[in-house]
Amino acid sequence: MADGAVGLLGGGVIGGGWAARYLLNGIDVRIYDPAPDAARRLDDVLAGARRAFGRLTLAPLPPEGTLSFVDTVPAAVAGALIVHESAPERVELKQELLARASAASGPETLLFSSTSGLLPSQLQAGIDHPERFAVAHPFNPVYLLPLVELSGGELTGGQTLERASEWFAGIGMHPLRVRVEIDGFLADRLLEALWREALWLVHDGVATVAEVDDALRYGAGVRMALMGPYLTYRIAGGEQGMRHFMAQFGPALKWPWTKLTDVPELTDEFIDRLAAESDEQVQGRSTVELERMRDDCLVALLQALRTQDQGAGATLARWERGLMGLAGAQSLAATERIVPAEWIDYNGHVTESRYLQLAADATDALLARLGLGPEYIESTGSYYTVETHICHIGALHAGDHVTVATQVLGGDEKRLHVFHEVKARGADGPAATAEHLLLHVDAASGRVGPAQGEVRERALELIAEHADLARPARAGRRIEPVSGSVDRARDAG
Amino acid sequence: MADGAVGLLGGGVIGGGWAARYLLNGIDVRIYDPAPDAARRLDDVLAGARRAFGRLTLAPLPPEGTLSFVDTVPAAVAGALIVHESAPERVELKQELLARASAASGPETLLFSSTSGLLPSQLQAGIDHPERFAVAHPFNPVYLLPLVELSGGELTGGQTLERASEWFAGIGMHPLRVRVEIDGFLADRLLEALWREALWLVHDGVATVAEVDDALRYGAGVRMALMGPYLTYRIAGGEQGMRHFMAQFGPALKWPWTKLTDVPELTDEFIDRLAAESDEQVQGRSTVELERMRDDCLVALLQALRTQDQGAGATLARWERGLMGLAGAQSLAATERIVPAEWIDYNGHVTESRYLQLAADATDALLARLGLGPEYIESTGSYYTVETHICHIGALHAGDHVTVATQVLGGDEKRLHVFHEVKARGADGPAATAEHLLLHVDAASGRVGPAQGEVRERALELIAEHADLARPARAGRRIEPVSGSVDRARDAG
Repeated sequence: MADGAVGLLGGGVIGGGWAARYLLNGIDVRIYDPAPDAARRLDDVLAGARRAFGRLTLAPLPPEGTLSFVDTVPAAVAGALIVHESAPERVELKQELLARASAASGPETLLFSSTSGLLPSQLQAGIDHPERFAVAHPFNPVYLLPLVELSGGELTGGQTLERASEWFAGIGMHPLRVRVEIDGFLADRLLEALWREALWLVHDGVATVAEVDDALRYGAGVRMALMGPYLTYRIAGGEQGMRHFMAQFGPALKWPWTKLTDVPELTDEFIDRLAAESDEQVQGRSTVELERMRDDCLVALLQALRTQDQGAGATLARWERGLMGLAGAQSLAATERIVPAEWIDYNGHVTESRYLQLAADATDALLARLGLGPEYIESTGSYYTVETHICHIGALHAGDHVTVATQVLGGDEKRLHVFHEVKARGADGPAATAEHLLLHVDAASGRVGPAQGEVRERALELIAEHADLARPARAGRRIEPVSGSVDRARDAG
Repeated sequence: MADGAVGLLGGGVIGGGWAARYLLNGIDVRIYDPAPDAARRLDDVLAGARRAFGRLTLAPLPPEGTLSFVDTVPAAVAGALIVHESAPERVELKQELLARASAASGPETLLFSSTSGLLPSQLQAGIDHPERFAVAHPFNPVYLLPLVELSGGELTGGQTLERASEWFAGIGMHPLRVRVEIDGFLADRLLEALWREALWLVHDGVATVAEVDDALRYGAGVRMALMGPYLTYRIAGGEQGMRHFMAQFGPALKWPWTKLTDVPELTDEFIDRLAAESDEQVQGRSTVELERMRDDCLVALLQALRTQDQGAGATLARWERGLMGLAGAQSLAATERIVPAEWIDYNGHVTESRYLQLAADATDALLARLGLGPEYIESTGSYYTVETHICHIGALHAGDHVTVATQVLGGDEKRLHVFHEVKARGADGPAATAEHLLLHVDAASGRVGPAQGEVRERALELIAEHADLARPARAGRRIEPVSGSVDRARDAG
């Protein structure tokens, strides 16, 4: 019987990445990997993924799924609705694993291969249920990059691809249906063309490994986080778009720039040179350090794209809305957020404006609970903070799990007086408190005026509900003058 | 005589991009472009660039340079130390322009071509001062992407390339010296390989224009903002790095994935299809809209990479440090910042925590003036804000030029009581005030203790200097209870 777990065959870079994405989405994982160090390697991938997810989103994550290692293919597959094969790129090995998995699968199980270029028709040829098989090709690191190429073979059922698209969208990915079965699918064909030319440039002594990378990452590579060549060149074509671009630059394609003919011979000497230049490029940084740098940058880039709701950032935003929906039933005070690394200042603590951000977001959540949405703001009015008082008691650090508890100290139909306590999980007391006076401003007149309709009713209800709560000790404070300081300063001066 | 202006020959997408980068770096530009609509097109590029720069950095920008149109090549070149030719990619046209420019140039003038692939030796063959000529190939949009490929021809002097590297670094770019003269340099060889495969995929009906773009921007394209193929594949190789990757995936290069042989024939039918699919991809968005989307995303991506000090973000950070150094001589109160678009909340105003950020940054600037640097913080101590009071009076909007004026209300050797007024240029009064109490905390004990040495002296001096200033009306406020609100709320409930 299906138990909601995902079965994974192979736990290397790609299989481990799948495990991390599923576990951090709250989905249990059963994994089959006969390699002796499989558990250790997976631990490393998971540590990296947890670190990245801790920074990726402030939406509340579900409790992490459970990971179990199993000794056989059927044990990984039995009861799973989703199975991924991520073995090395050897056709026979994959075919054999897939055949055993398909034989052990339930009537609803979808079976995917992570191959980066083998044809699905070839892989599904000898298995029991080829109609429920497809290629689902992800990109490294699987827990951060949203793309998954879906390619069905001759025997793949249409419903399989439909269900697969839905499933991957649900775990924050962007499923891209490859409409024609083709070696290398789409992305790897493009990347292979680039890679071959990158090899020639180094082989011919035109550039070093580092120079080739720099030629992309300081220029067109930044654009590529956002758009592919077609949109890029359309924009370059100006108002007349693609047609103009092709007229202007099409002929240049006939110039024999790139090496079209072949791959450089991978002699020992050439490989040695690549390895040496690669060592020079990383200047002693270990793979773990490089992976952290990569993940931190990818998180920052995804967050940047999310602010613009474009590409992979739009995928992230959709996934977060799903998480927020899941968390909707919890009380506001229980919503936990993780302090991201970029909130830290030169003192090693969270920078002061972020304490106010935590409080202000809690105010926004309170207002949302009163029914303040885009429609009300557009048609009727909104609440504005006119005064704020913050007390700093302790410090928050990167990775802290933070909750904000909110109390309404008073108010009427025009005013709300609220008080927040910002607290890290496990801390004795609050790290900070924030007190706010909010006024309701009428949309039409732009002047202070009473809240209307349900917002008004809910606000007055909440004020009444909280009226009997004890008044926090730090409410109503002001900053006292530093007595006598001016005189003493004058003496010292 | 050299007058510090830059001379530009051609003001299209690339020439206009150069103009924008220079003007916004405070450098005057003289431009020669005989096209009848040159001025209008340049206005459009400049409007886009100003908008992007307004969001790119909070460092104080120098006053914008002056743009003048001239009627002849010599008028653009005379007096300029730097000249860029950015004419269409026709060899004879470029050669003729460069010859006229070189003849009119001064003894120190560097002459660059923006060609994306023509050989510098060919372009410099007939000019008067070939030793001061090189290719400087930028990437669109020139005002945002830092990469500029530098390629010298047979007659180019080594000093020319040295001076060019220094010059481009000074305007926030990343100069990449191309060590071998080669058609297409580095970036365009790589991009052409990708582009040719992108054309085949659409030509063969494997994917649409939009699907090709999606195959990059949701996956490997995000990585490429950060690293090229060599570092990517090294990391994929795990602890054994590049050598392991080549052993594992080298053989796959022999599979005939990409189209190696030729370019698809650019028939009318194929061009029609590309244009139609491109139209579908952009869903009615105009080029201006697409350019804005692109620039907003690039700004956000550059800012994201800056938080990690990687790639193009490291270039941005270096440029900003230069700007801050230029601004060092100004008083703190005069430092002006531009409100970026991502500070805006659902009400259309700057979100409340950013007012505190403006104030807190002004506090940091004050502390820096007292001599609080990394060394003092490490060895002696630091100031921490313990209490904050904010009054909101008006609202700030995206693009506002904001100054923060700071007054020290009092203090002693352990305490600083400061008051900030946050004001938009042209506004009658402050948008917000922020009052803070800071305590000096000893690094060793972690407890409140007196400031030491010069920091103590400067703090006491500043307290004394400000002692006679009038006390701001909003200092010392507290949030008053909303009187009678609870009773009224109960009645309503």
